Amino acid sequence: MTTPLRLGIAGLGTVGAGVVKIVQRRAELLQARSGRPVTISAVSARNREKDRGVRLGEYDWEDDPVALARRDDVDVFVELMGGSDGPAKAGAEAAIAAGKDVVTANKAMLALHGQELAVAAEKAGAALRFEAAVAGGIPVVKALTEGLAGNEVQRVMGVMNGTCNYILTRMEHAHIGYNAVFDEAHKLGYLEADPNLDVGGIDAGHKLALLASIAFGTQVDFHAMELEGIQRIEIADIEQAKDMGFRIKLLGVAQMTGRGLEQRMSPCLVPETSPLGQLEAATNMVVLEGDAVGQIVLRGAGAGEGPTASAVMSDIIDIARGIRVSTFGQAASSLVQGTPAKTSVPAPFYLRMQLQDKPGALAKVASVLGDAGVSIDRMRQYQHGDDKLAPVLIVTHKTPREALDTALDGIAGTGVVEGHPVAIRIEEV
Amino acid sequence: MTTPLRLGIAGLGTVGAGVVKIVQRRAELLQARSGRPVTISAVSARNREKDRGVRLGEYDWEDDPVALARRDDVDVFVELMGGSDGPAKAGAEAAIAAGKDVVTANKAMLALHGQELAVAAEKAGAALRFEAAVAGGIPVVKALTEGLAGNEVQRVMGVMNGTCNYILTRMEHAHIGYNAVFDEAHKLGYLEADPNLDVGGIDAGHKLALLASIAFGTQVDFHAMELEGIQRIEIADIEQAKDMGFRIKLLGVAQMTGRGLEQRMSPCLVPETSPLGQLEAATNMVVLEGDAVGQIVLRGAGAGEGPTASAVMSDIIDIARGIRVSTFGQAASSLVQGTPAKTSVPAPFYLRMQLQDKPGALAKVASVLGDAGVSIDRMRQYQHGDDKLAPVLIVTHKTPREALDTALDGIAGTGVVEGHPVAIRIEEV
Repeated sequence: MTTPLRLGIAGLGTVGAGVVKIVQRRAELLQARSGRPVTISAVSARNREKDRGVRLGEYDWEDDPVALARRDDVDVFVELMGGSDGPAKAGAEAAIAAGKDVVTANKAMLALHGQELAVAAEKAGAALRFEAAVAGGIPVVKALTEGLAGNEVQRVMGVMNGTCNYILTRMEHAHIGYNAVFDEAHKLGYLEADPNLDVGGIDAGHKLALLASIAFGTQVDFHAMELEGIQRIEIADIEQAKDMGFRIKLLGVAQMTGRGLEQRMSPCLVPETSPLGQLEAATNMVVLEGDAVGQIVLRGAGAGEGPTASAVMSDIIDIARGIRVSTFGQAASSLVQGTPAKTSVPAPFYLRMQLQDKPGALAKVASVLGDAGVSIDRMRQYQHGDDKLAPVLIVTHKTPREALDTALDGIAGTGVVEGHPVAIRIEEV
Repeated sequence: MTTPLRLGIAGLGTVGAGVVKIVQRRAELLQARSGRPVTISAVSARNREKDRGVRLGEYDWEDDPVALARRDDVDVFVELMGGSDGPAKAGAEAAIAAGKDVVTANKAMLALHGQELAVAAEKAGAALRFEAAVAGGIPVVKALTEGLAGNEVQRVMGVMNGTCNYILTRMEHAHIGYNAVFDEAHKLGYLEADPNLDVGGIDAGHKLALLASIAFGTQVDFHAMELEGIQRIEIADIEQAKDMGFRIKLLGVAQMTGRGLEQRMSPCLVPETSPLGQLEAATNMVVLEGDAVGQIVLRGAGAGEGPTASAVMSDIIDIARGIRVSTFGQAASSLVQGTPAKTSVPAPFYLRMQLQDKPGALAKVASVLGDAGVSIDRMRQYQHGDDKLAPVLIVTHKTPREALDTALDGIAGTGVVEGHPVAIRIEEV
């Protein structure tokens, strides 16, 4: 097969330019591996005049990505514009309607419209692939969809937003609070235009929703995800969790339980000696657990020109090689609607509270916990400070979230604790 | 496509039985993912009477794997017998000659005959796949061949023999010597029938040779590999390397250098804080470095029934899905003969020697190193023991191996060092 595979690239930001560079610089390698040349017919972006540090003169230009998607000389529509709707979705739909394959890095679009697009692609006989949408350069979509295809998947976990992990590890190493590090990250350009996509866990939640669909054969259901960002993590929690042998990560967890599909993206404590616990800065990590394979850990850069372009190229070369795999690993029409679990599986929790200097204060807290059925694994009370408050740290045994919430309300009502206790789930990894 | 994919499984040891179990227990899942049923037509093993804890009565039995490979009702010959030649190779050849696809876990066969078999498969239009041959359940062949297909690969590294990593980490944690731990591993059944395959680095070397072929587009060339086992690692080196912030791993490294293709499987020091340095017990880890993607780290179980069967199933499901990828990632006929690098790239080294209690002894060692062009990054001399010998540890700056060898000979000739110094490469990870 020596017919070239002809790309139409929509979106020429960092990633789009990165893909163009690889197609130009590695033409020989790509042809050797694909068995056919990979070429670019046309490109599209908002501003034609902008210098992107890459040679574009030899390609046709389209102002409208939908027109690009429909061109006769385009076999694969490469969608790198972003945005869950608008031109990205219109372009993808137009390409699919024209029977063309689509490669995208767009997690938001797929988290919200993935099922609809996958069904459309299936009907049209088109491929719709998204390796670059999850964890940047880490080939995790492929590992889960193909590498673990013989497994009943038990759990998928991941630190998949580099900015959040940067903020959390920077707080720890520099001993500075969330707001200061947030401002720093903002100045460094690490944050999305809407920072809540990062620090609110939405971006990482989109990625987890896509992995959950593949893992459990369910239709993508981002709205069922329990979402909590890192905005309320205090330096005290980072340091005191560390004191107990844990680190705090914005961790995504998806698992099929007896009570339905659980999808959470929230701050969790993980043992500092575990691979997740050792993760520094903006690096991403995904943990896949299957009944046969056990635990597989994948680590790499979750963003950036090279890593993301590498993932886009992986999908493109798959298509060039004639590899056709269903978008979410099985026929889109066979994906079932998952029943969201109403409550998460029991887990140990880390609690931090400020105890007032009153006789019997600690006993009151302990007895409220006991009454709610929450048993204590470890407890530390530190000295009272100048404010007459003594920090108390508690690690509980496994407890249902409901019992814990009852206990937390009870503790707040004892009158011996200042404010509301902090509670963070400890994920067993 | 609802025609079943029919397997013929040759070899019913742990892995073969594991594959049969998955095909039986996960039939529905496999069909959903493959789009077609995956069935077993016939099996073959040496002893028909043995109880393997798995239902086999419904399958035809063949005493001869070659006959199994040729059966009309077998689409894929699944070779799980092992051995570089003999029945495994005969069966694979017969299957290929009959135009059937082959899935194997046999690293020895492919390291020695992979090029020949891949060429034959290509001519016959048959697939020859080997995910299970490298690092057990870790989908590293897929990650490298497909996930990183858009990269010029720069370096592949790996700890790919669980037994060796078990021995090295057990020596460290239990403070006992190599021979004692070797005996322990032997009693636990961790060692191959010929233990030198494990501790001599041969098994891990076979795996590295396969990855190198994919990474660099070269014909598998196991004989060009520099091989050194772990038999001479002393507890003193493990403990003193640790003291300098390193751990010792049996590490495979393949990289294309200006002087040719370098393939080494040998004990190396790695920083104890690196992912490779943190690897415990029998876990495997592979590190892939590409020009676009940067560094990708994959971690998981390198052996055992479930993980290895998971990898075999991954290849089988690929075939069921109609995925065809060349054995080593590009047409076998296009793989070039790599030029083996005669010398490894310069690296820092760890040196340990026993210094005699003589005036000017340390100065003599330092001056021999300097004369050979080897510069010292860090040095520690410990107190003289009862034997009047003082351990000296040196970490050098990057140095060519030849310069180091000159220095080591010079040091042995000074008359102030007992025996020959130990030198272990420090791999920059």
